[in-house]
Amino acid sequence: MAPQLDAYFKQVEASSEDFIERLRKAVAIPSVSAMDEHRPDVVKMGQWLASELKNLGAEVELRPLGKQPHKEYLDLPPVVIGRYGNDKKKRTILVYGHYDVQPALMEDGWSTKPFELSVDEKGRMYGRGSTDDKGPVLGWLNVIEAHQKAGVGFPVNLLMCFEGMEEYGSEGLDDFINEEAKKYFKDADAVCISDNYWLGTEKPCLTYGLRGVNYYSIEISGPGQDLHSGVFGGTTHEPMTDLTKVLGTLVDTDGTILIKGIKDFVAPLTDEEKSLYGDIAFTMDNLYESLGSQTGIFPDKERTLMGRWRYPSLSIHGIEGAFSAPGAKTVIPAKVTGKFSIRTVPNMEIDPVNELVIKHVQDAFSKLNSKNTCKVWCQHAGKWWVASPKHWNFTAAGKAVEHVWGVKPDLTREGGSIPVTLTFEQATGKNVLLLPMGSSTDAAHSINEKLDRRNYIEGTKLLGAYLHYVAEEPMEG
Amino acid sequence: MAPQLDAYFKQVEASSEDFIERLRKAVAIPSVSAMDEHRPDVVKMGQWLASELKNLGAEVELRPLGKQPHKEYLDLPPVVIGRYGNDKKKRTILVYGHYDVQPALMEDGWSTKPFELSVDEKGRMYGRGSTDDKGPVLGWLNVIEAHQKAGVGFPVNLLMCFEGMEEYGSEGLDDFINEEAKKYFKDADAVCISDNYWLGTEKPCLTYGLRGVNYYSIEISGPGQDLHSGVFGGTTHEPMTDLTKVLGTLVDTDGTILIKGIKDFVAPLTDEEKSLYGDIAFTMDNLYESLGSQTGIFPDKERTLMGRWRYPSLSIHGIEGAFSAPGAKTVIPAKVTGKFSIRTVPNMEIDPVNELVIKHVQDAFSKLNSKNTCKVWCQHAGKWWVASPKHWNFTAAGKAVEHVWGVKPDLTREGGSIPVTLTFEQATGKNVLLLPMGSSTDAAHSINEKLDRRNYIEGTKLLGAYLHYVAEEPMEG
Ligand SMILES: [Zn+2]
Ligand SMILES: [Zn+2]
Ligand SMILES: [Zn+2]
Ligand SMILES: [Zn+2]
Repeated sequence: MAPQLDAYFKQVEASSEDFIERLRKAVAIPSVSAMDEHRPDVVKMGQWLASELKNLGAEVELRPLGKQPHKEYLDLPPVVIGRYGNDKKKRTILVYGHYDVQPALMEDGWSTKPFELSVDEKGRMYGRGSTDDKGPVLGWLNVIEAHQKAGVGFPVNLLMCFEGMEEYGSEGLDDFINEEAKKYFKDADAVCISDNYWLGTEKPCLTYGLRGVNYYSIEISGPGQDLHSGVFGGTTHEPMTDLTKVLGTLVDTDGTILIKGIKDFVAPLTDEEKSLYGDIAFTMDNLYESLGSQTGIFPDKERTLMGRWRYPSLSIHGIEGAFSAPGAKTVIPAKVTGKFSIRTVPNMEIDPVNELVIKHVQDAFSKLNSKNTCKVWCQHAGKWWVASPKHWNFTAAGKAVEHVWGVKPDLTREGGSIPVTLTFEQATGKNVLLLPMGSSTDAAHSINEKLDRRNYIEGTKLLGAYLHYVAEEPMEG
Repeated sequence: MAPQLDAYFKQVEASSEDFIERLRKAVAIPSVSAMDEHRPDVVKMGQWLASELKNLGAEVELRPLGKQPHKEYLDLPPVVIGRYGNDKKKRTILVYGHYDVQPALMEDGWSTKPFELSVDEKGRMYGRGSTDDKGPVLGWLNVIEAHQKAGVGFPVNLLMCFEGMEEYGSEGLDDFINEEAKKYFKDADAVCISDNYWLGTEKPCLTYGLRGVNYYSIEISGPGQDLHSGVFGGTTHEPMTDLTKVLGTLVDTDGTILIKGIKDFVAPLTDEEKSLYGDIAFTMDNLYESLGSQTGIFPDKERTLMGRWRYPSLSIHGIEGAFSAPGAKTVIPAKVTGKFSIRTVPNMEIDPVNELVIKHVQDAFSKLNSKNTCKVWCQHAGKWWVASPKHWNFTAAGKAVEHVWGVKPDLTREGGSIPVTLTFEQATGKNVLLLPMGSSTDAAHSINEKLDRRNYIEGTKLLGAYLHYVAEEPMEG
C-alpha cells in the first residue's frame, strides 16, 4: 500500500492551497445553528457542501428533519447524506461531521473577523468552524479530490452523514440515524467521527471512550413568595437553608461522591487498562495550565486522567431562584432549585443511578425535619460510551497515525459526552472510532477558534491513510 | 386639653377633602429616587413640599447634599428642613419623613395609574407614595393647617426633616443629621418618625425597636476560569462544593444559628418583656397569610413575634458567580460568592459578631482541606435600635392613640431596619418614637400601594393629638 499512499500524500501537498481555499469558503458562511436569523446561512452551508460533494462525483441527498421543536416557525436544516463508491467487494465506512458552528461576534473579543479565515505566519488558520467541525468535514472531501487527482483508487465505499444542528443539541438526528441505520447506512462496516481534539498539541490520539452525564435538579420551596429577611427571618423555614445542607451531602471536597452505592457500579480498573495511562502525553503542568490554578485533586497524571475519563464525578453547577447578582439583597427566596450533575462511566446505567440519587436527596432532606417541600428529578441523561480499541477500525487508524505522524497515537477517552457516538453505535451495531484532526489549543466554542494548517493538511492525509489501512485490516482482530 | 382637641378633630374632618387633595397633588409628582430620569421630579417634589410649608407659615430651607456618590452627574435632591413655632416655653419635636418613592410602572401590574391617586368605594386611596411616605409627611402639614383653621394654639415647636433619597439608601443624610444635630435640630426634645406600619389592619401600634443587620460575603475561588464539568469534573477542587458545605454550617433548618458564641450576646428575655407579647394583635393565621404557607418555625404567636423582633436570625440569600438561569448548564464555576446576613438584636455589637462569623467560616473552610481559596467579609452592617417605651415621648403617643382610636396601642418592634432611626438617636441623644400611620396591607414597595382614607384622616388627628399630649407629659417618666 505504501506506493499508493505516497502518491496520495504528494497530491494532498500539491492541493493544499486549494483545500485551504475550500475551508475559507466554508468559514465564510456563518452557519450558526443557535441563532434564528442565521438559519438561512445554515441551510446555505448544507447546500454548498452538497454541491461540492456532487462536483466530486458523490451521490448526495439533502434530507429534511421537519420543524424545530419549541421553535415551530423554523425548519431544521437538512442532513446532508452521501455515498462515494458502491463496490460490494470493498468495505464501507460511515463518517459523521457537522456543518453548523457556534455563535461568534467580534465584540466577544475575536482578534480577526470570525467568518473570514485568517492564516497567520505560524500557519494558524483562525475562523469560526475552522476546527469544529468544518475542517474535519472538508477533510473527507479533500480525501476524495486528492485520490481523483493522483489517480489512486479509492480504497473503500464512503457513506457520509453531515448534520447542521450539532451545536444546538442535534435536534432530530437520533431519530434520523435510527431510521436510516438499516436503510441508507445499512452497508456500513464501521463508523468514524472526526469532531474531537488531541489531548495536547503534539501527539495525535484515537478516542475510545466518553463519560455520560445525568443532570439533576433539587427544588425546595416553602413560602408563597419571596420574603424580606428583616420581616420574616427567624419565623419561617427557609428553602435556601435546606438546599445548602442537602447539596452539602453530595460530594466531598476531594471529589468523592457521597451517594451510597454509586461507586459499586463502577467497573474495576484492570491491570491492562491501568497500563494504558503511563504512556499518554500529558503532564500535571498541562492540567494546571488548563485549570489556570494548582487546584488539582491528585498529584499524579495517571490518577488525574482516570479522574477525568474512567471514574464518575459530581459537580454542583448553581442555584436557580436565589439572589445571584452582585451587591447585597436581603431576600428569603421562596423557591430555589439546585443543579448538579454526575459524569457516568461503565457500568453506571442511567436508571439505577437515578434511583440512588433521588433516594439520597430525599433521605438527606427528610433528616432536616423541614416544613418546606423538596422535589428532585433527573433533567436529562446521556449514557457513557466505550469502544474496544482492539477492533480493526482502531488498529487501522493506529497504523495510519504512525504512517502520517511517525508516532503511535495516544489511546484516550474524554470526560465529556458526544451523544451521537452512542447513537451510531447502537443504531448500526458497528464499532465507532473518534479520530480527531485538531489539537487541544484550537479553542472550539471560544473566541479565536483556529485549526493549524499542519493539522488540516496532515489530517487530510491521515483520513485518507485510515481508509487505506481499513481496507486491508483482517476482519477479526 | 380635651376641648382644644375636639375643635382640632372637627377641623380635620371638615378639611379632609382638602387633605386628600393635597395627597393627590403629591402622588402626581413621580419622585422616584432610584431612577435617574426622575431626578427632576424628586427635586420638584421637594420644592412643592417647601412651598406648601411656607404657605402655612413655616420657616423652610432646601439644603443641598452635593453630588450622588457613584453617579456624580446627578445632584442629590435637597433635604427640606423647616421650623414651625419658636417658643422657648414649649417643647420642640423633630419629625422625619421622606418625599421620594419607590419605582412604579403600569406594566408591573398596577390596577390603576400609579401616579394618580384613585380612591375606591371603600376609601382605599391607591397611588405610589400614598402610604410610603407622602401620606405621613403631609399629615404634619395637615396638623398645622387644621390648628390654624380651628384657631387652636399649636402645642409645641415643630422641627421638620424631610429627605428625598430614602428609597435609595438615604445617600448623604447621616452626615447631614450629624452636622445639624447641634445646629438646626439643637432644640429638639424628642424625635418622631412616621414611616412604618401597623402589625395588622385594625390596631395601631407604637414601635420601639428594630433589628440590625450584618451582611456577609463568602468568596471561594480556585480555577482561573469557569470549566466544563465533562472535561474537568473529577480532577480539580470545585469552589461550589466547598461553598455549599460552608453555607451548610451556618444555621439549622429550625433557624438556630450555629455560629459559636452568637447566642451569648443576646440579651436575656425578662419577665416584663415577655409579658408584652401576649396582648399584641397578631395570630398565627396572620403569619401564614403573609408567608403564603404553613412553614412557620414556632407554633405560637409569642415565640414567632420574638423570632421576628428580639432574637437574631440568619438567612442565606444566594450565590453570585454560579449558574442561576433556568435549564441545564454543565459548568464548574471558578469563583462563587455566597451571601448571607444576620439580623442582630441587643446586645450584639457589630464588630464582635463579625469576629465570630469570620472565624466560624474560616474554621469551617479549613476543615475541608481544600486547595481553593476562601475569603469572608462583612459587606455592610447596621446596628439594632431599641428605645424605652416608658419615655414621655411614648406615653404621650400612647395616650393620643387611646384618644383617637379608643384602644391602647400595641408596643411593637420590627425585624427589619430603618437606619435613620438610630442616626437620629445617636446624633441628638434624644428619644425616638416610631408612630406609623398606615396598616400592614398598604403594600409599600409593591404594586397597588395604598393608604386607607381612615388611616390618613385619623392618622392626621393622631399626629396632632400626639403633639398636645407631648406638651403636657411630665419631663421624667
Ligand atoms: Zn463539533
Ligand atoms: Zn462544537
Ligand atoms: Zn418609607
Ligand atoms: Zn419605602
